[in-house]
Amino acid sequence: MDRTLVTGKIIAAKVRKGLHWRDIAVSIGQSKEWTTAACLGQMTFTKAQAAVAQELFELTDEECAWLQIVPYKGSLATPVPTDPLIYRWYEIVSVYGTTIKELIHEEFGDGIMSAIDFSMDIQREADPKGDRVNVVLSGKFLPYKTY
Amino acid sequence: MDRTLVTGKIIAAKVRKGLHWRDIAVSIGQSKEWTTAACLGQMTFTKAQAAVAQELFELTDEECAWLQIVPYKGSLATPVPTDPLIYRWYEIVSVYGTTIKELIHEEFGDGIMSAIDFSMDIQREADPKGDRVNVVLSGKFLPYKTY
Amino acid sequence: MDRTLVTGKIIAAKVRKGLHWRDIAVSIGQSKEWTTAACLGQMTFTKAQAAVAQELFELTDEECAWLQIVPYKGSLATPVPTDPLIYRWYEIVSVYGTTIKELIHEEFGDGIMSAIDFSMDIQREADPKGDRVNVVLSGKFLPYKTY
Amino acid sequence: MDRTLVTGKIIAAKVRKGLHWRDIAVSIGQSKEWTTAACLGQMTFTKAQAAVAQELFELTDEECAWLQIVPYKGSLATPVPTDPLIYRWYEIVSVYGTTIKELIHEEFGDGIMSAIDFSMDIQREADPKGDRVNVVLSGKFLPYKTY
Amino acid sequence: MDRTLVTGKIIAAKVRKGLHWRDIAVSIGQSKEWTTAACLGQMTFTKAQAAVAQELFELTDEECAWLQIVPYKGSLATPVPTDPLIYRWYEIVSVYGTTIKELIHEEFGDGIMSAIDFSMDIQREADPKGDRVNVVLSGKFLPYKTY
Amino acid sequence: MDRTLVTGKIIAAKVRKGLHWRDIAVSIGQSKEWTTAACLGQMTFTKAQAAVAQELFELTDEECAWLQIVPYKGSLATPVPTDPLIYRWYEIVSVYGTTIKELIHEEFGDGIMSAIDFSMDIQREADPKGDRVNVVLSGKFLPYKTY
Amino acid sequence: MDRTLVTGKIIAAKVRKGLHWRDIAVSIGQSKEWTTAACLGQMTFTKAQAAVAQELFELTDEECAWLQIVPYKGSLATPVPTDPLIYRWYEIVSVYGTTIKELIHEEFGDGIMSAIDFSMDIQREADPKGDRVNVVLSGKFLPYKTY
Amino acid sequence: MDRTLVTGKIIAAKVRKGLHWRDIAVSIGQSKEWTTAACLGQMTFTKAQAAVAQELFELTDEECAWLQIVPYKGSLATPVPTDPLIYRWYEIVSVYGTTIKELIHEEFGDGIMSAIDFSMDIQREADPKGDRVNVVLSGKFLPYKTY
Amino acid sequence: MDRTLVTGKIIAAKVRKGLHWRDIAVSIGQSKEWTTAACLGQMTFTKAQAAVAQELFELTDEECAWLQIVPYKGSLATPVPTDPLIYRWYEIVSVYGTTIKELIHEEFGDGIMSAIDFSMDIQREADPKGDRVNVVLSGKFLPYKTY
Amino acid sequence: MDRTLVTGKIIAAKVRKGLHWRDIAVSIGQSKEWTTAACLGQMTFTKAQAAVAQELFELTDEECAWLQIVPYKGSLATPVPTDPLIYRWYEIVSVYGTTIKELIHEEFGDGIMSAIDFSMDIQREADPKGDRVNVVLSGKFLPYKTY
Repeated sequence: MDRTLVTGKIIAAKVRKGLHWRDIAVSIGQSKEWTTAACLGQMTFTKAQAAVAQELFELTDEECAWLQIVPYKGSLATPVPTDPLIYRWYEIVSVYGTTIKELIHEEFGDGIMSAIDFSMDIQREADPKGDRVNVVLSGKFLPYKTY
Repeated sequence: MDRTLVTGKIIAAKVRKGLHWRDIAVSIGQSKEWTTAACLGQMTFTKAQAAVAQELFELTDEECAWLQIVPYKGSLATPVPTDPLIYRWYEIVSVYGTTIKELIHEEFGDGIMSAIDFSMDIQREADPKGDRVNVVLSGKFLPYKTY
Repeated sequence: MDRTLVTGKIIAAKVRKGLHWRDIAVSIGQSKEWTTAACLGQMTFTKAQAAVAQELFELTDEECAWLQIVPYKGSLATPVPTDPLIYRWYEIVSVYGTTIKELIHEEFGDGIMSAIDFSMDIQREADPKGDRVNVVLSGKFLPYKTY
Repeated sequence: MDRTLVTGKIIAAKVRKGLHWRDIAVSIGQSKEWTTAACLGQMTFTKAQAAVAQELFELTDEECAWLQIVPYKGSLATPVPTDPLIYRWYEIVSVYGTTIKELIHEEFGDGIMSAIDFSMDIQREADPKGDRVNVVLSGKFLPYKTY
Repeated sequence: MDRTLVTGKIIAAKVRKGLHWRDIAVSIGQSKEWTTAACLGQMTFTKAQAAVAQELFELTDEECAWLQIVPYKGSLATPVPTDPLIYRWYEIVSVYGTTIKELIHEEFGDGIMSAIDFSMDIQREADPKGDRVNVVLSGKFLPYKTY
Repeated sequence: MDRTLVTGKIIAAKVRKGLHWRDIAVSIGQSKEWTTAACLGQMTFTKAQAAVAQELFELTDEECAWLQIVPYKGSLATPVPTDPLIYRWYEIVSVYGTTIKELIHEEFGDGIMSAIDFSMDIQREADPKGDRVNVVLSGKFLPYKTY
Repeated sequence: MDRTLVTGKIIAAKVRKGLHWRDIAVSIGQSKEWTTAACLGQMTFTKAQAAVAQELFELTDEECAWLQIVPYKGSLATPVPTDPLIYRWYEIVSVYGTTIKELIHEEFGDGIMSAIDFSMDIQREADPKGDRVNVVLSGKFLPYKTY
Repeated sequence: MDRTLVTGKIIAAKVRKGLHWRDIAVSIGQSKEWTTAACLGQMTFTKAQAAVAQELFELTDEECAWLQIVPYKGSLATPVPTDPLIYRWYEIVSVYGTTIKELIHEEFGDGIMSAIDFSMDIQREADPKGDRVNVVLSGKFLPYKTY
Repeated sequence: MDRTLVTGKIIAAKVRKGLHWRDIAVSIGQSKEWTTAACLGQMTFTKAQAAVAQELFELTDEECAWLQIVPYKGSLATPVPTDPLIYRWYEIVSVYGTTIKELIHEEFGDGIMSAIDFSMDIQREADPKGDRVNVVLSGKFLPYKTY
Repeated sequence: MDRTLVTGKIIAAKVRKGLHWRDIAVSIGQSKEWTTAACLGQMTFTKAQAAVAQELFELTDEECAWLQIVPYKGSLATPVPTDPLIYRWYEIVSVYGTTIKELIHEEFGDGIMSAIDFSMDIQREADPKGDRVNVVLSGKFLPYKTY
């Protein structure tokens, strides 16, 4: 038994019971973005959050304990993702990666945008030419230290 | 001669003349995000935009013609980027990729967020605990066609 | 349980019962191309389509629910496919890829041919020198947005 | 000197002189699809075709000789292409590869669709919801031999 | 259940019953080369051939049906084979690949030697300095089509 | 200067002077298969053979010395070859590799077919249904030693 | 011209002039660890530091400007380093990676040790059984944010 | 049964019983760093250490025997690790690898820092700007032998 | 069932029964080097050797038959081995590979050292500065054939 | 200028002047194995050794300085070598790697055979069935440290 198996069981329970991430998030008490990442095995649950998940997804006590252990992260099976939706994000990194780097450095100097002190918000924007997906990424700027 | 060489010449001129992307963008008449991507060899210039770039970066007529040709896109040298700033974005795709996929499908059904009918906005958000990089990505949702 | 297992069960049932894709497509009510892709785990079924598939392939209710969930797409085990038929298609992309790119850009400007708003039709063309496979691919042109 | 350098010189001349593939094809006397592939270093010119190319692209006699030598084919720099347009074609092979395989085998039995006795035709189809790229691929079916 | 499992069962039965490929080939009624490839999951059996295999290898009806389905071909686990015997063949392609290409093109012009309309014959040649393996490969030449 | 550059110069001279491998082989005094492999940088020339090559390809004395040095072998740029003709040979290894292994082991026991004490002969076989490429590979069988 | 070329010129000057990193660090006014990383193209110089480097390594004004531009980081040519000294560090990550992860999580909870707000100190420790290399790595702990 | 399965069982028991590495280390009688590495399958237990582990993790006698066998080491699933914490260490090797190499060679000459005669100590350092992870790595210097 | 499973069973039996390779080799009647390689699935047993192994490792008749079948060789899970002991050997090939090549060619001319007609002997050499592992590799030289 | 260029110049001088490694080794005053590795860019020269090399290979003062700098080691262009002679050594690691590991651990316990405190001796052994290459590898055993 490891976290991967718990993730598989959560997804199967979600399919079987017809749940939605937005409702699961309300039960867990976090944003839908964090909650989905956590249920997919990328984040660590507190004891209280794990108890909610245990009931929602009908997990055993041992599976519930696994949710509270820091997981080995990384949700993709291949270095270049094959799924078209996820690939489009990889393409954004591939095509715009050096652009993002240049503009952040121009504004902030040498450093990075944190992927740890980080949040994400995904929203639908109605548009007569076809609705749009709007995603806001917010990460703390961390300057390189000199010493 | 190919577009890669023109990109190299643009970057060298920018370093030599001490230019900033935000000012170059004003001269070109597009956002700083699109302009930087275009100067880094990922986008196609119109004739007018190329003329501005030619003067700014002291390009020859042939180099100016290359800017108006659709380039072979992709700005990274390796499937997994080595630069820490760009890697953090790859990590976001790796850690949050399945989360993004789940939430977009829950809201929109099967399809993708376009990386072509797409725009990006990068801003500094002041924060007493350390300033943050805020990035808004906006892409049209394209549903899978059945037939 | 995940979609991959349902795909395996569908293929096994098809072999065991001696079904043909063209007849399955008629039952599902879509083209044989879309239907085959969907049964092979690349597309999402509607409730009604899934009900037909459930009866045809003798699936359980949980397996039927999986058909209506957006799958993680990508049907090949290796970046370069080993099967000779599928490799020939990869070879077409390898040998003619830059040609396709040049001709679409000459006609349409910078952008892509969508693989989402996309359809495919595969037909036999009788030919005295040996019958031919004719494939028509149709994808919406999506121009790059400037902003 | 090798064929790659000749290809580079042809592309540079085309940019410098503002030529179009469709006009070059008329001069060469073949389809725009074959002609573009040939100019991009994937096909072998006859003596007469090479003479036309020599004049069009201002090639030396030695460069002209290279055009008549069978080239080492393959136009992509990486196993998985990074250019968004060409990637969409790779994605079609990835997502629909097993579908194409199933449908050709159902119709023809075991064998392949040739990528050698092969032709391609790329056309614009006007469409009020956005013009489409239509591509017809035609390849001879080659059955596996038993012995 | 899929073809890979049937292949595994065939090999295990062959080991258990102490059969030889040359005798199996006589029963199947094809050459030992084609028969071995087919039993190893690379070729498609006719109904009559599958019936012989079913009895020889004690297969179920469903396993027998799988033999008549076109398989996903490719018998090696890694792009560069690790087994020394098979590696020597890969080495021949690596060291002599461009030689084979040059000589076939010199004799036939641009095109390929088919791996589909193809046969192979493996024989022992007695030699006082150590017996030799003689392999004859025969493939139809397919010229590139111009259009 | 290294052997790769000498190979490049040989190929360029062959194109420029319109030579054929079969004639070069007669001058060198070896088979066309060995001669081509040697000229393409895979084999070591004797002093006499190098002298012939020097005159044929107009090489300097230092280039002539390189021909007599054992080269770093391997003629392909990628683990999986991109050229369609050479790929067909890789495909033969991929599809028939385990078959070749089984049949050689059945005949000879554990060991390999040498790729060093090895020769190759490539011939055209006229055939009314389309001429065939016939290739004979002959390698000494080397049994594994026990100790 | 890009940063890689400046790095090459710095290393060549250091070899030619017989300089030591520890002395260069004193001139630059930073630790020997940061200074070496900066000279090897991984860090960004301030204007004052660049002026010192310009004189030490006899750089042109343009090369001096490059030192003040944020570089594309990553100092290794291959994902798995081939140099024995650097490989030992990769081996530490490979063998002890999950150990490091477990112990940091046990002490700090979910999060990472920063490689940006990071410093390193390398010292010789005399030891009668053979001197030792002692390295102290210090990185800020960054907890995963929930939202 | 192999060591990997024993590792899995140890981790599962640790989760189920809520144990901490620091307490396990006290029971085993080694540092927390060595103990964790050993429990994660990277080190070899003595008979006495294995007996303690057997009781702590409720292992069978055969599982206990496996702990005393030298394992096949390497704890990461991919050459470039996907977990953000472990990746930061890989990034340190990527960004600072050549720096570490230069400084060790400047101090010690040609050779390596051993990853075998090696120890590691991980500690929390309180810091008002955010606590830090301090790691001391100590490895014997091994000079290259000349002969 | 295949050879890999038999290898796994042999290793488990060896652990369970506390056997040593040197004693197993005496029972099998070959060197400890050949015997270990054979038990680890890289060599083919004779009927008599397999009978000894069957009793030693408590194998079934079918498992005993597998030992007498030529295996698919290759004992490493990744192209670059992760285990530190085996990696050191890979490093020797990486660092000294071209040296070995040069010296064998200088002594013998063009050809290879056989890895088939090959033996190996591993011994401990006592040394006051720390015992050494001495390994003698002996392989027949095979010259390249000209034809 | 870097060490790779110096290596290239050394090899070219050796070809041009017809030198032998065994004689160069005598001049340098080390074994032919160490000397060859050093000349091929894998080892560091002392001042005196570099002076000999400078005269032998007609190097400049700057090239001579490079020989005394610790090089970035690793002499192969690809993770799996393509040259048949070097591949046989990689094959030995692949086929016998786990055997070597088992036997060293049985004799010495957990640890490695050093590739740093290491020497190699390559000799011809006359043999009526064909001369053999005998290679003796000697490396200090380094036990894993517990702490």
